[in-house]
Amino acid sequence: MIEKINVKQIDQGSIVTPKGFQVAGLHSGVKRKRNDLGVLYCEKPANVAAVYTLNKIQAAPIHVTKESIEQENKIQAVIINSGNANACTGEQGRKDAYTMRNVTAEKFQVPEHYIAVASTGIIGLEMPMDKIVPHIEKLEVGVSDTHAAQFGESILTTDTFSKATCFEAEIDGKKVSMAGVAKGSGMIEPNMGTMLGFITTDVNIESDVLQTALKEVVDQTFNCITVDGDTSTNDMVIVLASDLAGNEPLTPNHQDWAAFIELLTKTCEDLAKQIARDGEGATKLIEVEVKGAASNEDAQKVAKSIVGSSLVKTAVFGTDANWGRIIAAIGYSGADVNPETIDMAIGPMTLLKNSQPTGFSEEEATNYLQNETIEINVHLNMDEGIGKAWGCDLTYDYVRINASYRS
Amino acid sequence: MIEKINVKQIDQGSIVTPKGFQVAGLHSGVKRKRNDLGVLYCEKPANVAAVYTLNKIQAAPIHVTKESIEQENKIQAVIINSGNANACTGEQGRKDAYTMRNVTAEKFQVPEHYIAVASTGIIGLEMPMDKIVPHIEKLEVGVSDTHAAQFGESILTTDTFSKATCFEAEIDGKKVSMAGVAKGSGMIEPNMGTMLGFITTDVNIESDVLQTALKEVVDQTFNCITVDGDTSTNDMVIVLASDLAGNEPLTPNHQDWAAFIELLTKTCEDLAKQIARDGEGATKLIEVEVKGAASNEDAQKVAKSIVGSSLVKTAVFGTDANWGRIIAAIGYSGADVNPETIDMAIGPMTLLKNSQPTGFSEEEATNYLQNETIEINVHLNMDEGIGKAWGCDLTYDYVRINASYRS
Repeated sequence: MIEKINVKQIDQGSIVTPKGFQVAGLHSGVKRKRNDLGVLYCEKPANVAAVYTLNKIQAAPIHVTKESIEQENKIQAVIINSGNANACTGEQGRKDAYTMRNVTAEKFQVPEHYIAVASTGIIGLEMPMDKIVPHIEKLEVGVSDTHAAQFGESILTTDTFSKATCFEAEIDGKKVSMAGVAKGSGMIEPNMGTMLGFITTDVNIESDVLQTALKEVVDQTFNCITVDGDTSTNDMVIVLASDLAGNEPLTPNHQDWAAFIELLTKTCEDLAKQIARDGEGATKLIEVEVKGAASNEDAQKVAKSIVGSSLVKTAVFGTDANWGRIIAAIGYSGADVNPETIDMAIGPMTLLKNSQPTGFSEEEATNYLQNETIEINVHLNMDEGIGKAWGCDLTYDYVRINASYRS
Repeated sequence: MIEKINVKQIDQGSIVTPKGFQVAGLHSGVKRKRNDLGVLYCEKPANVAAVYTLNKIQAAPIHVTKESIEQENKIQAVIINSGNANACTGEQGRKDAYTMRNVTAEKFQVPEHYIAVASTGIIGLEMPMDKIVPHIEKLEVGVSDTHAAQFGESILTTDTFSKATCFEAEIDGKKVSMAGVAKGSGMIEPNMGTMLGFITTDVNIESDVLQTALKEVVDQTFNCITVDGDTSTNDMVIVLASDLAGNEPLTPNHQDWAAFIELLTKTCEDLAKQIARDGEGATKLIEVEVKGAASNEDAQKVAKSIVGSSLVKTAVFGTDANWGRIIAAIGYSGADVNPETIDMAIGPMTLLKNSQPTGFSEEEATNYLQNETIEINVHLNMDEGIGKAWGCDLTYDYVRINASYRS
């Protein structure tokens, strides 16, 4: 059925393809060279949904953004800086986040609670407000590819490439589009890999409905990637819906609801996979699909356990079809497992049938593991549960990047 | 109070220091060169307690050992091989584990259910019984230091040193002793780091009481170490009590119960720390102590989250006092945390007071982090909960060891 839904990727699309959005990005001086300040603006107060880090230590901007959204469930602009996470900065940090919100509201002449704030970068360092404040005024939003590129760069930290995607679908016979920009996971200074996602769409959908959909989709996309298992203090994914596509308000009863969910899923999944592929020091994207679990939840536990295993990650780096490590990761995943009925395949090769080695060709396996995307498929043969997870290999470069001094 | 209990380490002690025990170890040919077959024998059926891996995929010897103990709660000999884990070996694997039990029972002329079996090594490979069986007969047990050393070597895999310890205490005015031998964690072929622990004591204690004590102590010792978060299919810790020390049967009501718990705790903790220090590629032991948590359980969650964080492990390797990573690991540990009241110290240096940086000397911190043992102390200032965990740094060698081919 998903097949029949017509959601297609727009290669030349960008964060400003959905109607009503403009962006800007520039270098304010928080970072040495690259852009470090960006803004996403909507010509009208957009309906909004957001999910935040589950880390109990949450950075100041997370608190401020929650406060803004709670008031009216509308956001018209998101101000973002990279280079400093404004986390563990106490009272001063909260003041600074409010100042960023206030100055941005002034600039766009909108109420403060229409502004969301996001930061990523070094923890425990006071925000260089002397650099940020004057530059917020200098942000000139627009819809050109240059504007989109400048914005995309302004949210990056140790990312080696900018993550962006754009899809379109038909709802009520009208063309609607959704686009996103994200920055990568890893975590905390010096690698500063907070995960941030900014998604725009022109569909007509109420904030509460959008929130429910986002939570559900994020669980199957952004929450299924792992680079090192660490969770940042600043993670945030926010969706703005401008309601300019002219469709009837979307609800689960809408005839095209499935198309919308597919649109949101494709957007989030594509960004999530780009993040996993760009994990620190990563050379390969690992995609795990689990079927036949007792439940979808169990399937996801198993998939995450496999992509999260340091031993599986190093084996993939070493192009070693080490199924012993994979089966061990399945065993300790916490999911219901029948030790006798596990099938496993790496790419085209079946390694295990009913938990027994099939006698595969090590050479063939090693060749397959040279690829940039490694697929691991597991069938537990218990029930109908399915789940996916994405990760990357563990390399010398991960150690190098993370063992290096902050200075 | 713990201070007042007189439990002292016996440097020249060994696994056969407790009365009634003898051991042997030799090279049977499962491994290329080093010893790979060992036996621990007690002159009489010993009371026994054991804990096993929580991995749902459990190797054949685990099943056989459980079966033996269930029958009478007595074990007189433990037969152990390294080089092959006899895991994921199906029906044949179970037959082979039974054969090892049977041949060992014959050799010592004791009932089969007095024999425990343990294996560690490559997963999914059939056991080379043609090598193991004839060599079980060749095992000549004794109490010399050479016997102890031969046995200690026979259980090792990628361990770089043999882990052993011995303590003594006074119970009912009688000198009692406890000793242990262990092999290291990491996991699964090629690194083959199953965690195995064999503990002997001459105290008089019933199996069920010993089992309760062991479970409790293992939770605060062996279960508090992590090298890479992976859990093997073969982990086992077993304690044999020969009842030759002549003390009154130990129960929680016994006047010297605390001394016994301390004896067991010191033995397990010392072995656990040796295992963590010998983690694959490790150059440093990381010891985390958490105080002021809402509960002991929460304190342990936080301690484990810190030693388990790849980012903390790489920072320690890089001698980087990166408290941002530590506070993030505290935040995502799942424990109750007040983001405003966290104190943190690395060795002698306070890094955070009430979650705020104290402005420590990076140079001093870097110097401290050159040590071979790194202490991280956290105070959550919430309640009385305390907990400890041990781990090691994450190094280039961990990646090298685990990325290398099995062949």
